[in-house]
Amino acid sequence: MIEAMSKLRNEAPIGVFDSGLGGLTVLRALAARLPREDFVYLGDTARVPYGTRTVQTVLNYSHACARVLRDNRIKMLVVACHTVSACALDALAAELFVPSIGAIVPGTRAGLAVSLNKRLGVIATAGTLRSGAYLRAVGELDRTAQVFIEAAPLLVPMVEEGWLDREATRLTARAYLEPLAKSDVDALVLGSTHYSLLMPLIADELAALSGKAVPVIDSAPAIAEEVATTLESRQLATARDDPGKLRIIFTDMPDDFGPANRFLGKDLAQLSVSAVDV
Amino acid sequence: MIEAMSKLRNEAPIGVFDSGLGGLTVLRALAARLPREDFVYLGDTARVPYGTRTVQTVLNYSHACARVLRDNRIKMLVVACHTVSACALDALAAELFVPSIGAIVPGTRAGLAVSLNKRLGVIATAGTLRSGAYLRAVGELDRTAQVFIEAAPLLVPMVEEGWLDREATRLTARAYLEPLAKSDVDALVLGSTHYSLLMPLIADELAALSGKAVPVIDSAPAIAEEVATTLESRQLATARDDPGKLRIIFTDMPDDFGPANRFLGKDLAQLSVSAVDV
Repeated sequence: MIEAMSKLRNEAPIGVFDSGLGGLTVLRALAARLPREDFVYLGDTARVPYGTRTVQTVLNYSHACARVLRDNRIKMLVVACHTVSACALDALAAELFVPSIGAIVPGTRAGLAVSLNKRLGVIATAGTLRSGAYLRAVGELDRTAQVFIEAAPLLVPMVEEGWLDREATRLTARAYLEPLAKSDVDALVLGSTHYSLLMPLIADELAALSGKAVPVIDSAPAIAEEVATTLESRQLATARDDPGKLRIIFTDMPDDFGPANRFLGKDLAQLSVSAVDV
Repeated sequence: MIEAMSKLRNEAPIGVFDSGLGGLTVLRALAARLPREDFVYLGDTARVPYGTRTVQTVLNYSHACARVLRDNRIKMLVVACHTVSACALDALAAELFVPSIGAIVPGTRAGLAVSLNKRLGVIATAGTLRSGAYLRAVGELDRTAQVFIEAAPLLVPMVEEGWLDREATRLTARAYLEPLAKSDVDALVLGSTHYSLLMPLIADELAALSGKAVPVIDSAPAIAEEVATTLESRQLATARDDPGKLRIIFTDMPDDFGPANRFLGKDLAQLSVSAVDV
């Protein structure tokens, strides 16, 4: 009986929660790393962005979304949104009562691993910056490391517009990266899912400002690795051998899948996509 | 008795509804034009921006905000947000049962008044563009006029960041204005409250692209004029002689009044500012 329940549990989907579309970059990394697992992605597109809101409002919205995730009987929660990870991960984990992995710690760990002088740079939304989550994560992982963090809010809508290699985007990135280069950071963590799509541009600009190549860390593969390890250690991996399924739920159905397709790297029209009211 | 009720009604505040902070530019114009009236401003900062959402979601949010406006017993509604004006003005007017003025018609009328060849340009959010509201307004006001409309979404967050005269902002505005200049528009209506703060930059860029000065219309003073006329014709003006009061309500209290102060042109810390859950 217990074994049957455990098997049932192992075949449940992994929930991926994001404030909007950016977390689809994380879903992409997860599906590549764990191709036999089922995933349910919930994007709160009706209320995105979270990065500019107060902690209380992010908690309220996350709480409303938790209901949808619970209805989907997920076996594990991945919070792809850095802002939610920064201020609501513990609340969500307590509410859903499943192993929960956020975006802050995996990215920070990967950044520290490649930082020689332990001068870690981070760009993030205003909400993530204010939360102090990166400072706490670095403090827990390596007390000798220093962290330098800048809010880079405009890069989010620029990615949503698909302006991935425009001069305006380049100038905007440069303005945000300048103080980090001056602080001589030797690794940069991208503290918002959106920034992943600007990886080449950001790496170029930071190298030009720093006078040397500086490794730039996308949290998505680091999160996927941590999820894989946790599935293993908690004995939660699926036993199935066939390819897993992706299901996408939005709180406001996009009129146009173009931006979502860019984040996911495949066409959403081929997947199960539905809308839910929260 | 009827006279007493009517007097009571005339001393009620005018409600100004916006999706966020941008409508404070309209409140500023209203307070300047009607200095003896009381105003209650409701900004749905917990769910801004509306411009990227579907019509159904904008209707849901507007409906929730209508409750707050009704509790404040307003005598007239001004919808400062162009997206709400484009798709929820009629629903709000029916629900609140007070004279209601939106942002689309006054700005369009002011644009047509200065357009010599009736080739009207408009920049707006994606939601306002999709709604077709400017096409309808021009069709109703002057059937001989042509309208050319471009979505200019990135200018909204750039204004919120206070990037009012940056090179990145200039390049972004240029990209959006280029097709309008090619269409030889002879007046440009700013179809989002945020754009008002970019008036000089937009006028410069449009003139450079067009090879001549093209009048640029901020809807805020046009809205204020229409409100003044309606107060008069409906006999709704206050009888008081002392200066009116401004009250500001947000659905998510900003951590920093800087952006709001830029929109209003005065310090919110001097006013009555409160938060409400919707």
